Amino acid sequence: MTEKSQSPRFTELVNSLPASVPFVGPETQERAQGRMFSARLGANENVFGSSPKVIKVIADAAMDTWKYSDPESVELRQALAEHHQISAQNIVIGEGIDGLLGYLVRLMVSPGDRVVTSLGAYPTFNYHVAGYGGELITVPYRGDFEDPEALIAMAQKEKPKLIYFVNPDNPMGTVHSADVVQALIDSVPDECLLILDEAYIECAPDGAAPAFDTNNPNVIRMRTFSKAYGMAGARVGYAIGQVELIRAFDKVRNHFGIPKISQMAALAALQDQEYLSQVVRQINDAKDEIAKIATENGLVPLASATNFVTLDCGGDGDYARRVVAELGALGVFVRMPFVPPQDRCIRISAGTPQDLALLAEVLPTALANAQG
Amino acid sequence: MTEKSQSPRFTELVNSLPASVPFVGPETQERAQGRMFSARLGANENVFGSSPKVIKVIADAAMDTWKYSDPESVELRQALAEHHQISAQNIVIGEGIDGLLGYLVRLMVSPGDRVVTSLGAYPTFNYHVAGYGGELITVPYRGDFEDPEALIAMAQKEKPKLIYFVNPDNPMGTVHSADVVQALIDSVPDECLLILDEAYIECAPDGAAPAFDTNNPNVIRMRTFSKAYGMAGARVGYAIGQVELIRAFDKVRNHFGIPKISQMAALAALQDQEYLSQVVRQINDAKDEIAKIATENGLVPLASATNFVTLDCGGDGDYARRVVAELGALGVFVRMPFVPPQDRCIRISAGTPQDLALLAEVLPTALANAQG
Repeated sequence: MTEKSQSPRFTELVNSLPASVPFVGPETQERAQGRMFSARLGANENVFGSSPKVIKVIADAAMDTWKYSDPESVELRQALAEHHQISAQNIVIGEGIDGLLGYLVRLMVSPGDRVVTSLGAYPTFNYHVAGYGGELITVPYRGDFEDPEALIAMAQKEKPKLIYFVNPDNPMGTVHSADVVQALIDSVPDECLLILDEAYIECAPDGAAPAFDTNNPNVIRMRTFSKAYGMAGARVGYAIGQVELIRAFDKVRNHFGIPKISQMAALAALQDQEYLSQVVRQINDAKDEIAKIATENGLVPLASATNFVTLDCGGDGDYARRVVAELGALGVFVRMPFVPPQDRCIRISAGTPQDLALLAEVLPTALANAQG
Repeated sequence: MTEKSQSPRFTELVNSLPASVPFVGPETQERAQGRMFSARLGANENVFGSSPKVIKVIADAAMDTWKYSDPESVELRQALAEHHQISAQNIVIGEGIDGLLGYLVRLMVSPGDRVVTSLGAYPTFNYHVAGYGGELITVPYRGDFEDPEALIAMAQKEKPKLIYFVNPDNPMGTVHSADVVQALIDSVPDECLLILDEAYIECAPDGAAPAFDTNNPNVIRMRTFSKAYGMAGARVGYAIGQVELIRAFDKVRNHFGIPKISQMAALAALQDQEYLSQVVRQINDAKDEIAKIATENGLVPLASATNFVTLDCGGDGDYARRVVAELGALGVFVRMPFVPPQDRCIRISAGTPQDLALLAEVLPTALANAQG
């Protein structure tokens, strides 16, 4: 918190907020280092890119960027509705899941309201909760998994407005089965809303996502085009929930906030499921290669249902932070979990063969430097 | 306000908000009519499009849309800083001026705080003020101009957090000189912030924008790539202000919210000032043609410093609304001011020669139908 950003003109809540940001971009690190990373494996982007059909749609749509986008995103919502066999009324499009989380917290959380999440889960969600004055209550992971039963037990005790649960999990890459997730959904207390963040679901094996029930007022599910669909730079996420809840977003969202090109690109991406299947195979091959490289270097790869592999470095957080820094100095951008005990790990996104060849080349040096 | 969107789970403030949206998109009207508009002259877009260099940058950048954008938008902010001869620290990029207005209101306005604006000014600003529980206090236009002296007098009386002032004005198209605007800036009471919305400034004649003074804590200026730069669909706006105020946006904004392609497109647009000059000439020619068509049909064009012409239809709001509806039915999308007495007018964006030929063709019928 900087004194300078406090002023009687800001709201009391804003004056209480730290000036920190949830994530530092790799570009910031590149500017500080004075050179670009050679492998960009820290933000769980899809290095294999989006479908060639998406790229063509963007190029073709460039001429139309003078037009405001459809503020209701009807074409995209209808296509998503068909894809998921639900109604477009149950879908709202947002500026990535990040944007949707912000709107949802704003809808639900007044200063002092409680919110339950896992200790070490997505910091951008925590950022929004703090930003609206919510009180964050955390439960620990169980092993390297989020703990649905502990989340529910805490919710029953604390009566929070929101529970946040990610499946498959970021930053650990672990996954719960649809049965476990459904049991969690079924246990959500009345007057409480479960956010089921499924940013990585397209990378998960079958059987990780429960069926949609858009009549259930106690769950909202969030999906994105940023991960498996390879469109992180386009900022298109969507939320699925009961119609009254989805409609409430219209009270607070930036109605013209989703660029026209992004909407058209998302539509094209959705329509190319063949490419999605192919890219998920490439991601899986890359994850196998990361696990192999890790094992050869004495690190323990966690089983992953996402587009990244979390590697247990076998030390403490300081050690893992040194590994991240050394890899960065050698041109490989990676990130790591923020809090113990998960911060014994580093997190490496599925890369191209070239990216992973570089990883294999520099990892021994990075580990030696981190140890020494 | 619909009962269905009220729930004990939403915040009290959200339950009090109407479900309405600031603007209905032309796509919504097209879906209702079952056909596309032939001329899209209602949203003050730049029908001449963005620079060919922008279009090329977008097409070239399509392949990189898998990458998250730089959350600090450093390249774009540095280019803007150079362009305006200020520091990048004084600039924040947002999801259009709409997005920036939302963040700014959130930073400054607690429930019950007062905000002063002109009666009939930008409804999306009002939407954000209501959305954070602010109390909107309005002063009437003087003639067809916003009234700086009345805004200041009201601010002195009501001690608002914010004053909102648009120059050149939307929806009337009128402009105040830099001297008048500077006098307004100099009169802002302490502990109050003037928002100077200059969305249309690139279309205005020289002498409408005061010099930047980024040491002044009492003014924040907003600009956009949506109007003269022809990039409404890309959602890139920026705000210029004192460094402490600009830095505060980092406490609440969606840090990864500006698409990578949009940032690159805005940079390319800024670097093609020659195209901007050329397109402003095209806009001016189109405004002359709109004025001519209007005059030939007995409507009175207001002098415009924007990319649209506001036409006095000489009747009341109901009559103007009928003219808008009749033009729409004949394939020409236009909009009009929302409140009396400005709602005696309709507002027509600068169009291509083809757009305006259609306008000339259908306007007599539209007026006859509206009268009859």
